Amino acid sequence: MADVYSPLLNQLIEAFQCLPGVGSKTAQRLAFHLLDKDREGGTRLASTLERAVRAIRNCERCRMLTEEAVCRFCANDKRDPSQLCVVESPADLLAIEQSGAYRGAYFVLMGHLSPIDGIGPAELGLELLEQRFANERFSEVVLATSVTVEGDATAHLVAALAHKHGLRASRIAYGVPVGGELEYIDGGTLSRALNGRREIETGSDAGGRR
Amino acid sequence: MADVYSPLLNQLIEAFQCLPGVGSKTAQRLAFHLLDKDREGGTRLASTLERAVRAIRNCERCRMLTEEAVCRFCANDKRDPSQLCVVESPADLLAIEQSGAYRGAYFVLMGHLSPIDGIGPAELGLELLEQRFANERFSEVVLATSVTVEGDATAHLVAALAHKHGLRASRIAYGVPVGGELEYIDGGTLSRALNGRREIETGSDAGGRR
Repeated sequence: MADVYSPLLNQLIEAFQCLPGVGSKTAQRLAFHLLDKDREGGTRLASTLERAVRAIRNCERCRMLTEEAVCRFCANDKRDPSQLCVVESPADLLAIEQSGAYRGAYFVLMGHLSPIDGIGPAELGLELLEQRFANERFSEVVLATSVTVEGDATAHLVAALAHKHGLRASRIAYGVPVGGELEYIDGGTLSRALNGRREIETGSDAGGRR
Repeated sequence: MADVYSPLLNQLIEAFQCLPGVGSKTAQRLAFHLLDKDREGGTRLASTLERAVRAIRNCERCRMLTEEAVCRFCANDKRDPSQLCVVESPADLLAIEQSGAYRGAYFVLMGHLSPIDGIGPAELGLELLEQRFANERFSEVVLATSVTVEGDATAHLVAALAHKHGLRASRIAYGVPVGGELEYIDGGTLSRALNGRREIETGSDAGGRR
């Protein structure tokens, strides 16, 4: 297979396979597309990627990816400093941010507990998190990790840390998604939805609880 | 949306969208993956892509993508120089090569006739192709363009050129693919398969015709 490409083309196709979900066939398609139809885009991608890998680091307060010392969430003084939302990844942070339902501070673990992959408390930056627990006056720590065994374990660990510092910890609600039809929802989700049921209140504050 | 990323991260996510089939969501995933999990792969992709876009051009004989003056198909003197297979794209060339059923020379049009997109004979390198028709002794020109209106039109145009130079032109067979179940094959393909039917010969050379 390799011998049908010229050496550089071969290297390019191999290099594209570092992208998630990209195998040799897709890598070939990406390489041919850029070389044949969008060399300008290819040049821009190459130079931007080179600069990004060199300059983008973790925010020193919340570990979000940024090329600045402190990310724009931490630097924004219009945000509520009394709440801290703990997420697993930058993508999760952005998903929460885009929901528009949260305006407090963040902390990005950049992973979840996974001893089998060698990811323990140190890899998740829990030392930095504890410093923040100790030094800042959070009224609540919101745990927004995934609903997986690892996500749950991570949430419990962080909650224990928060409690150690006398802070309230909460976990975001898991249940049937908006628009979800019960017949297609898996049993695990339904069981969580039933366990997390809330009393219906009628009147002016229907459905609301803070 | 853009204001949630740091400027460089934002540029990187935009740059990834030059890839085919990559929108803002996938671009974000690619960027986070490289920055978070595979910086080395990202650096390698950036530098390889930069070199490839700079160095890879079209082969001066067949227009295949290569960083060498003449590609390895044209440079390989073990190939049959009496046959020329005309394809639309480098990916088509490789698909034919990988079938193992063809060992002649190639010519890559890098597209198909499409007046609406401004792609005419000049863009397909037909001048270069005619030079080869005039200077080399091909016994056959095999047209392996797509089975689309544009692919058919392109095949007819190239066949006419070949005939002008007194060369035989053939079109690869189109019909039911191997493993295809008739009930799921579209009408157009079935109609081509019926029109292209071949007599069954029994005996030592069953099914074979050259």
